[in-house]
Amino acid sequence: MNDTIKTIMNRKSVRKFSPKSISKEDVKTILQAGMSGPSCVNSRCWSFVVVQDKDKLQKMADANVKYADPLRGAALGILVCSDLSRTEFFANAREFWVIDGAIAAQNMILAAESLGIGSCWLGTWPVEERVNNQTALFGLPEHIVPHSVIAFGYPAEDVPYGSRAGRPEWDEDRVHWEKW
Amino acid sequence: MNDTIKTIMNRKSVRKFSPKSISKEDVKTILQAGMSGPSCVNSRCWSFVVVQDKDKLQKMADANVKYADPLRGAALGILVCSDLSRTEFFANAREFWVIDGAIAAQNMILAAESLGIGSCWLGTWPVEERVNNQTALFGLPEHIVPHSVIAFGYPAEDVPYGSRAGRPEWDEDRVHWEKW
Repeated sequence: MNDTIKTIMNRKSVRKFSPKSISKEDVKTILQAGMSGPSCVNSRCWSFVVVQDKDKLQKMADANVKYADPLRGAALGILVCSDLSRTEFFANAREFWVIDGAIAAQNMILAAESLGIGSCWLGTWPVEERVNNQTALFGLPEHIVPHSVIAFGYPAEDVPYGSRAGRPEWDEDRVHWEKW
Repeated sequence: MNDTIKTIMNRKSVRKFSPKSISKEDVKTILQAGMSGPSCVNSRCWSFVVVQDKDKLQKMADANVKYADPLRGAALGILVCSDLSRTEFFANAREFWVIDGAIAAQNMILAAESLGIGSCWLGTWPVEERVNNQTALFGLPEHIVPHSVIAFGYPAEDVPYGSRAGRPEWDEDRVHWEKW
């Protein structure tokens, strides 16, 4: 098993972080990974709000309403945004932006994991209340949709693989060979 | 730069594949990577239709209508599907399935890349015609939505990094520090 596959397989959500901060260099590497995924007609229709200020992280957690506590102790929160002004060439399929934002976020999560930095994905879109709150908190322009918040930090304690309850390595019933 | 980050940064869409087939072991590793991402409330709301039959690959390409030629010469096509029957706990945010499918697909693309296997993401959802065609081709049940098709294969020729026209490594205008 090569290192990339180990990173992918070992990733799990981390909800408790140590107080250790993340270096500017690592933050930039994580963001660059986010910019490196495919996007619909190469639109690169995302933007990232990068937050390390402790007070702002509390406000981001409040804005996401539920299940957002990991952000309170995080060293870094990134609000992945989708830029609808870059989706005009998607024709009748504007919602490809949802996919492009998810690709960017997962790339960032894996880059962080490979650097020993844990993360927890906090869903924002399509929960209207969370979308509205993050929009208000950051004063986002009308064409910007808050897609997801990712909390990052060094894990406070090792989260053993076995703790991924209900997450088997292989789900045979999800695989259909050649036909449904 | 560690191997995972190299894999993420070096990935580019490959549209011409060699005739070399992909081993069953590698196909399973790719699928397992797809099963290893986070999903909303751990729903694992995806399924994968795995196609290596050459005739079926042509039919998948036809069903995706446009820009699907990479699939015609691919060694493997995976139709990522979203299983709406597993989203009943998402409350008023059922569309989290779009994000979960994208995470699974990007994990598979990166696992493949690390094995020297190229890929090209062919958008299916939200283009209604493609969704309807793939549903008909595979006889998908009503609760299954075809999300994306990923074409995989060994690259026919090396695609140099510089060929990613319009894809800079770093987009400063997409990054907002602490505030929008």
